[in-house]
Amino acid sequence: MPIQFHSAQLALDLVGVFVFALSGGLVAVKKRFDLFGVLSLALATGLGGGIVRDVLIGAVPPVGIGDWRLLTAAICGGLLTFIYHPGVERITRLVIVLDAVGLAVFAVAGSLKALSLTNVPPTAAVLVGLMTAVGGGVIRDVLAGQVPEVLRRELYALPALVGSTIVVVAAQLGSLTDWVLWSAVAFVFVVRIVAVRLDLSAPKPLGPGSFRGKKEASVR
Amino acid sequence: MPIQFHSAQLALDLVGVFVFALSGGLVAVKKRFDLFGVLSLALATGLGGGIVRDVLIGAVPPVGIGDWRLLTAAICGGLLTFIYHPGVERITRLVIVLDAVGLAVFAVAGSLKALSLTNVPPTAAVLVGLMTAVGGGVIRDVLAGQVPEVLRRELYALPALVGSTIVVVAAQLGSLTDWVLWSAVAFVFVVRIVAVRLDLSAPKPLGPGSFRGKKEASVR
Amino acid sequence: MPIQFHSAQLALDLVGVFVFALSGGLVAVKKRFDLFGVLSLALATGLGGGIVRDVLIGAVPPVGIGDWRLLTAAICGGLLTFIYHPGVERITRLVIVLDAVGLAVFAVAGSLKALSLTNVPPTAAVLVGLMTAVGGGVIRDVLAGQVPEVLRRELYALPALVGSTIVVVAAQLGSLTDWVLWSAVAFVFVVRIVAVRLDLSAPKPLGPGSFRGKKEASVR
Repeated sequence: MPIQFHSAQLALDLVGVFVFALSGGLVAVKKRFDLFGVLSLALATGLGGGIVRDVLIGAVPPVGIGDWRLLTAAICGGLLTFIYHPGVERITRLVIVLDAVGLAVFAVAGSLKALSLTNVPPTAAVLVGLMTAVGGGVIRDVLAGQVPEVLRRELYALPALVGSTIVVVAAQLGSLTDWVLWSAVAFVFVVRIVAVRLDLSAPKPLGPGSFRGKKEASVR
Repeated sequence: MPIQFHSAQLALDLVGVFVFALSGGLVAVKKRFDLFGVLSLALATGLGGGIVRDVLIGAVPPVGIGDWRLLTAAICGGLLTFIYHPGVERITRLVIVLDAVGLAVFAVAGSLKALSLTNVPPTAAVLVGLMTAVGGGVIRDVLAGQVPEVLRRELYALPALVGSTIVVVAAQLGSLTDWVLWSAVAFVFVVRIVAVRLDLSAPKPLGPGSFRGKKEASVR
Repeated sequence: MPIQFHSAQLALDLVGVFVFALSGGLVAVKKRFDLFGVLSLALATGLGGGIVRDVLIGAVPPVGIGDWRLLTAAICGGLLTFIYHPGVERITRLVIVLDAVGLAVFAVAGSLKALSLTNVPPTAAVLVGLMTAVGGGVIRDVLAGQVPEVLRRELYALPALVGSTIVVVAAQLGSLTDWVLWSAVAFVFVVRIVAVRLDLSAPKPLGPGSFRGKKEASVR
C-alpha cells in the first residue's frame, strides 16, 4: 500500500541536506581542504544519502542532483561552513549535533520516500531509510579518509533503524501522520544525543584482543 | 536469450551472503568495532555485492534489502562472529577461506542473475558476476580503512572472472545445468585457495620501484 | 528537450576511458599492485565515472560494462601502464596530465549523455557531467587508499563544472555543435593544466588552524 508523497517530505529533505552539508563542510574545514574541496564534501555529504536512496529504489535521476532547492541547501551549508566556522575545538561537538539532526531527519525521510513507491516491500523501506540516514556520513568519512562514524564507538545506526521502522510500521497501520513523522525525528535525535552525552556504547566483542589489552596494561 | 530465474539462485545467494557476512564481521571484530559496527560491516559485506549487481542491472529495489531470507543470513553471520569468534591468530586464515567461498558463489550467482534479464549483453553479465563477487569485499575493506584485497597480492579477481565467464558461455551454448553451476563454484574456490596456499601471485610491474628496492636491500 | 545521441559521444567516451585507465594503472603501479591489481584499478578508474553516470540517469546496464569497445580501451590502458611505464619520478606528472584529459572529456561526455534522456533536468545534466568527470578519479583514490584529488589542493572540480555547464547551456540554446563540444573539452583541460602549473588554488578557510599554523611557525 504505497502512501501519497507526503507534504513533510520536502521539509525533511531540505533540513537533512542542509545539516549534513554543514557536517561535511566542517570535516573538510578540519582537514584544511580549499573552497571547492569544502563545497564538494558538503554536497557529497548533504546529497549522498538521498542519492543512495533514490538509486536503490529506482527513482532516477535522484532528486539530489535534479532539484535546485536541495542543491541550494547543500551549497548554502558548504559556503556557511567555509566563510563562518567556529574554533576548531568547538567544531567536533557541532559536527556531532548536526550529524544527529541529519541522521534523524533522513531516516524518516528516506523510509517515507521508499513507501511512496509501489514496488518497495516494507523491509526494504526500513533499510532504505537507514541507508539514507547513514549514507551521507559514510561517504563523507570515506572521502575524508577516516573510518565511518557509523562503525565506530557510539550507538549510531540503531536509533536511525528504530526511526525508520516507526515510520514503516505506522504506514502499515495506516496511521502515518505529521505528528508521527516529527515524533520519530525527535526520538532518533534524542537517542543519538543521549548516547553521545552518556558515552553509551553498544557491547564490544570479547576475545583475545580485549584480554591481551588488559594483560598488556597490567604488565606495563 | 535470457534464461529462467534459476532454482540454484537463492541457494547461491544465501551461501554467499552468509559467508561474506562472516568475513565482514571478522574484519570488524579485528578492528574492535562494537556490536552495531560488527553487524553493519557484516551486512555491508554480505549484501553489498548483490546490491551493486542489482543496481547495475536495474533490478531495484535490490533483493539484498528487500528479501528477509538474505537479511536474516547476513544478520546471523554478523551475530555469529560477534558472539563466537576464534582467536585473533586464527581469524586471518578463516577470513581468507570464507572470502574464497563468497567469491566463488557470488561470481556464479551474479552472472546467473544478470543472464535472467533481457537487456543485459553477455559481456555485461560476465562483469556483473565479477563485481557481485568482489563488491562486498571491496566495500568491507574500504569501510574498514584498508586497501581492497582484490587489488593486493594474490590472484583474486581472475578466478571470479573465469567462473562467471564459464556460466555465461554455458548459457550461450544452452547447456547451463546445476552441475555446471556448482562446478564453476568449486573451480573458483579451488583456484583461489590454491593461489593463497602456494602464495601464487600475478606478475608485478618491473620498474624503478623494484630496482630501487633491490639496490636498497643490497646496500643495507 | 533531449538531444539526439551525439556522434561525438563514443569518441569522447573512448578517449576518457583510455586516459583514466592509464591514470588508474599508473597509481596502481606506484602502489606496486600486481598485474590484476593494475588492471582492476585501471578498469575501475576508466569505467567508474561512466558507470556512476549511467546508474544516476537510469541507463542500466551501464555501457561501461556492456560495450566491448570501452572495455577494450580500459584493458589496453591498464596493460600499457603495466608493461611500459616511465620512471617513478615522471609518473606523478603524467598522471596529472592524463587526469586532466579524462576530466575534460568526461565532463562533456557525461552531460551530453544525460541530455540525451528525456527525464533528466538541466541541473541534473550538469551535475551528472561533473560526477562522470570526477567519479573515476574518486574511485581510484578511494580504492588506492588516498584522499581523492578532487578534494585536495588545486582547482579540479570547478573547470569540469564549467565544462558541463557550457554543454548544457548550449543544448538549451539549441546550438550544441561538435565545435562547441571540443571547445568545452579544450577549455576544461587548459584551465586544469594552468591551475596545476601555476599552482593556483581555490581559497582556503581562515580559522584557528591557519592562525595556529602561523603562530607555531613564528615561534619555532
